[in-house]
Amino acid sequence: MGGGLLEKPGDRKKLVKQLLKIKDPWILVHGGGRMASDLARQLGQEPVMIEGRRVTDKATIKLVTMVYAGYVNKNLVADLQSSGMRAIGLCGADGGLMISSQRPSKPIDFGLVGDITPEGINEKMIEQLLQSGLHPVIAPITMGEHGVLLNTNADTIASVIAQKLAGKYEVSLLLCFEKNGVLRKPTDPSSRIPVIDRKEYQSLRKAGIVSGGMIPKLDLALEAVDHGVRQVWVGPGDHLAEVQSNPEKAGTWIQKS
Amino acid sequence: MGGGLLEKPGDRKKLVKQLLKIKDPWILVHGGGRMASDLARQLGQEPVMIEGRRVTDKATIKLVTMVYAGYVNKNLVADLQSSGMRAIGLCGADGGLMISSQRPSKPIDFGLVGDITPEGINEKMIEQLLQSGLHPVIAPITMGEHGVLLNTNADTIASVIAQKLAGKYEVSLLLCFEKNGVLRKPTDPSSRIPVIDRKEYQSLRKAGIVSGGMIPKLDLALEAVDHGVRQVWVGPGDHLAEVQSNPEKAGTWIQKS
Repeated sequence: MGGGLLEKPGDRKKLVKQLLKIKDPWILVHGGGRMASDLARQLGQEPVMIEGRRVTDKATIKLVTMVYAGYVNKNLVADLQSSGMRAIGLCGADGGLMISSQRPSKPIDFGLVGDITPEGINEKMIEQLLQSGLHPVIAPITMGEHGVLLNTNADTIASVIAQKLAGKYEVSLLLCFEKNGVLRKPTDPSSRIPVIDRKEYQSLRKAGIVSGGMIPKLDLALEAVDHGVRQVWVGPGDHLAEVQSNPEKAGTWIQKS
Repeated sequence: MGGGLLEKPGDRKKLVKQLLKIKDPWILVHGGGRMASDLARQLGQEPVMIEGRRVTDKATIKLVTMVYAGYVNKNLVADLQSSGMRAIGLCGADGGLMISSQRPSKPIDFGLVGDITPEGINEKMIEQLLQSGLHPVIAPITMGEHGVLLNTNADTIASVIAQKLAGKYEVSLLLCFEKNGVLRKPTDPSSRIPVIDRKEYQSLRKAGIVSGGMIPKLDLALEAVDHGVRQVWVGPGDHLAEVQSNPEKAGTWIQKS
């Protein structure tokens, strides 16, 4: 769930309403980047982004830990709990849930940023929580060597958790963001492409139709499909509960071929 | 563990070293008030305190949720995990761990502050976590009606958790702060009173020797003793692991009579 879908008053309540309708066990991974940028600016720290990713120095990891694992995470959990769903808010440090490697400083030095693979996911912990009726609500902070907290992309976390669990379960990965799916014309929601496979993705990328932040998102989506995740979908946040029952209505399905 | 003991570089590492030596299962409740005040000032919000307690408006609950449940909590958990102890960071919203009532606005309107009793503690969740080897690390944020997050005194949380668990287990409550215990002369660490009971407390209070922040701390300590907590101790943070093996060395033991 992209941070852009959790910003406005009432956004969290809308999300909770959707989650209430989902009967299968779920795991929520959330962002919060814009809120972190707002707080950074209030503190006089201008966010530095390279290729859409945040450069994370010591002041920035403190700030994103506060915003993601504190403010966004705990308010989401409180909304869920008060709506009758049991939920627990976690970051990668908790119980060793998500162990990552700090990204090498070359070619680009992103600072305290973590790269994570399915091997870094504590699957047993996720299983135990779900079995005891607690829905994991996961902030995009992972843990590297010597207990260092690392800023990690939320889409990546969602994809690697889905890949890890796909070894044992039927898993669907829903990547929610502000758009109606993959669009032929960036500003026209009705230009949505309902289904994409790797070949189609490559030709759309060559044609410049898929660009910017959509590239890493679709790379993660295709990686998940290749690693056994049954269903992968990229689409708007307000459609979450209907993805299964009304799969044609919104968003883009990602297929192997 | 008072927030004043978690402020300086290396404070967390010292605490982790102590916790490594404790063989019994433990639950850590931490503060972070000074760090919250520092961040508030950086954001141009001057903290408002009445009788040593923070008046918590909407901006302040956002800020303390970030500092307590985000920054302090997750860094403590990361330090513990990287030292080989399994730990999980929680606030009152997580799994409905701590349900409180918003304090009435009279006689003093503290805003978004929660009062908690042993009835508000989810004992079963604490038991399940400890049984699965996870040490709960608890931030002083509780949940009131409609999922509202409420700022709650960390000593109070520690005391009510101890009281709740005392119904089933042998519980020790250790309230750690910056001083060497209850002191006859506030600035002289060697003037420590090694043992206090309710009668002695009342005469010390009348004489003005116990005053200020020590009053609510000792009230909570005595309440815990009255509700079946086996051992209650108020003392310095650097003595935590030795309290049982060397009980005379530091701090003040609180006794029923």
